[in-house]
Amino acid sequence: MRDINVAVVGIGARGHGNLETILKLPAIKVKAVCDIYEDRCQDGIDIVTKSGQEAPFASCDYRDVISRDDVEAVLIFTNWEVHIEIAIASMKAGKAVGMEVGGACSIEECLKLVACYEETKMPFMMLENCCFGKDELLALNMVRDGLFGDIVHCHGAYAHDLREEICCGKENRHYRLEHYINRNCENYPTHELGPIAKILDINRGNRMVRLVSMASKSMGLKRYVDDRKDTIVNKDLIGKEFNQGDIVNTLITCANGETISIKLDTTLPRSYSRELAVRGTKGLYEQSTNTVFLDGDKELFETKEYYKDTIDNAAKYEDEYLPDYWKNITQEEIDMGHGGMDIFSFTAFFNALRENRPMPIDVYDAASWMCITALSEESIAKGNIPIEIPDFTNGAWKTRPRFDEYQNI
Amino acid sequence: MRDINVAVVGIGARGHGNLETILKLPAIKVKAVCDIYEDRCQDGIDIVTKSGQEAPFASCDYRDVISRDDVEAVLIFTNWEVHIEIAIASMKAGKAVGMEVGGACSIEECLKLVACYEETKMPFMMLENCCFGKDELLALNMVRDGLFGDIVHCHGAYAHDLREEICCGKENRHYRLEHYINRNCENYPTHELGPIAKILDINRGNRMVRLVSMASKSMGLKRYVDDRKDTIVNKDLIGKEFNQGDIVNTLITCANGETISIKLDTTLPRSYSRELAVRGTKGLYEQSTNTVFLDGDKELFETKEYYKDTIDNAAKYEDEYLPDYWKNITQEEIDMGHGGMDIFSFTAFFNALRENRPMPIDVYDAASWMCITALSEESIAKGNIPIEIPDFTNGAWKTRPRFDEYQNI
Repeated sequence: MRDINVAVVGIGARGHGNLETILKLPAIKVKAVCDIYEDRCQDGIDIVTKSGQEAPFASCDYRDVISRDDVEAVLIFTNWEVHIEIAIASMKAGKAVGMEVGGACSIEECLKLVACYEETKMPFMMLENCCFGKDELLALNMVRDGLFGDIVHCHGAYAHDLREEICCGKENRHYRLEHYINRNCENYPTHELGPIAKILDINRGNRMVRLVSMASKSMGLKRYVDDRKDTIVNKDLIGKEFNQGDIVNTLITCANGETISIKLDTTLPRSYSRELAVRGTKGLYEQSTNTVFLDGDKELFETKEYYKDTIDNAAKYEDEYLPDYWKNITQEEIDMGHGGMDIFSFTAFFNALRENRPMPIDVYDAASWMCITALSEESIAKGNIPIEIPDFTNGAWKTRPRFDEYQNI
Repeated sequence: MRDINVAVVGIGARGHGNLETILKLPAIKVKAVCDIYEDRCQDGIDIVTKSGQEAPFASCDYRDVISRDDVEAVLIFTNWEVHIEIAIASMKAGKAVGMEVGGACSIEECLKLVACYEETKMPFMMLENCCFGKDELLALNMVRDGLFGDIVHCHGAYAHDLREEICCGKENRHYRLEHYINRNCENYPTHELGPIAKILDINRGNRMVRLVSMASKSMGLKRYVDDRKDTIVNKDLIGKEFNQGDIVNTLITCANGETISIKLDTTLPRSYSRELAVRGTKGLYEQSTNTVFLDGDKELFETKEYYKDTIDNAAKYEDEYLPDYWKNITQEEIDMGHGGMDIFSFTAFFNALRENRPMPIDVYDAASWMCITALSEESIAKGNIPIEIPDFTNGAWKTRPRFDEYQNI
């Protein structure tokens, strides 16, 4: 197995964890680290040396690290707004790119990302770890086996109470805070949309053609701050109005007639969920109740208070439908982040790069998933009007073949 | 307790059951029955006489029964399309009206319903039994107590696999079949929207201002028929295209900034659910997982696979928040239909009529809930454009007081 030399750009909370994770992978050498803050650069150096590797080059300017001859791949873990800018600069510098998830600020940057890839053909992957999620792959493989018949609708959510993280944004130099103050959109669509797009063959025989978005009022953060006036560190937030609606629902229609509903749900009290639901003519998968319901099971579930029954039977399908790496997951892998998804996502990237295989999640995926943020913002700002979704494949979606091998890391 | 003499119009499956139910109520006399089919009229006569009451007058023309001097109230259990027509004729004939649920075919008929009520002031109630549902009232009373803080979003669904019923529409003379062949809309919004509208004070301090709807492709009924070519009775359905999308999602925004999402989900395999979810700044109620989650419970629920935990703790709130009639429900009441909701709904209607109290679900409720069907049809037909929702109160929503007494039957 040959070494891959990488540069890591962005060493905030997520970058810190990701850097630790990739250093546990075989034959990955971190040659350079970068963050706009010097203390984070030092943190990056410390993590690398603690792992036993040589001290990496460090800079606060990403242009210094992406141009180095000893770097083959750039991993981008920065704030959302500069993901695409750094990805483009890296590809132009002849580097492979692994880019963390986030929404796009404009359609233009998505178009530029695609154009840059088509010009440079440098390997590019969006590191959407939820595409390697256990439930998501279980659902995908059940779909592919025809268990649910023709798929007509999928639902997902990013449902995660982030109030504390958002309100500590200034102290933690975290970018989410400014997004919640200034924007109002589906700001984080890819965790749920990515796996759904794979299920629905988006950009490979299908595409998303139109969306509408609607945002609720913004009350969650305001009330959260009101209730913590004495203890909150950032006093600027007291009395602050936030633009971001608490719940943003987005409906998407696909070229082949399927619909997708996704929900941003990050500023009200709740437990975490991605709410994946797959609906077909022969059955369904529902993550929030851990249910597989197949046509003909009707009698089993129609009890007197049947609408309360959580079936909780999905586990019995794991033997048949889970990839081996999920069946054989180790405690170490689980501990590497998000229950195992992180390590599988990185492994998929590095293996594809090393073996010169197509990337699991490519620029067309990235552009079409990320653009939902910018388009939802427009739909909401203009009173929930429908917005056309660009075809980033320039018509190639009609003939691009399905690519399920992505799940074989 | 004085007698109330009623006429029953519409004695199909639902009318048959409802007729049996109301005959078990004290002091309700069925003086007239009506259906466009003679055999159903005879069925109505038989049900009434079997209960021990005198044989009612019967006619296939509703105008004959609503004009009778011995009738005080008309109960309308017909197909959806003529609900409002018969309600208007009955009010004009000086009768109180109890009308079964369904969607409207046009905004015009909703406006006419309101105008007729304002002219005649005859008591009118839409018999939305789910407003008397156990879960729905539990949620309402928790909301009113402030348990969830400020409410910002509600979700609901009519999720009920009706494929068999729809495909037997010709044999059973059931109207749903023609709707599914010809229309494409949120055809049955009130079961979930009614309770949500009560929670959000719609027409009483708040109103629904705008919606967008999106329909998936229509595959469920087609595949259902394909798989049953040999056994299906109505051979006309073989190869038939249905207009109605399998899943219709509708997003609604309210004057006070709350959003509502509702889902029609009736032609794919699944178990029944209304999916009521209420989201506030301090907590949530979620029917599908039977969960009450309050701010501060976070640690309790964040286990390693926390997104799979069904909390299933709502029952512990019943002592404090359920109306007495739900706490003391008898097996007989449960057996009277839909687990008890039906009898509570009828009791509420008859008690309000007898005691000359305001009706629990009035024409403004009915018009604003039913109109969603016609408006969703327009949104879908025009490519998911936003549609303004009429204010049927003509501005009175701003000052009409909350009316929670409706739940005290």
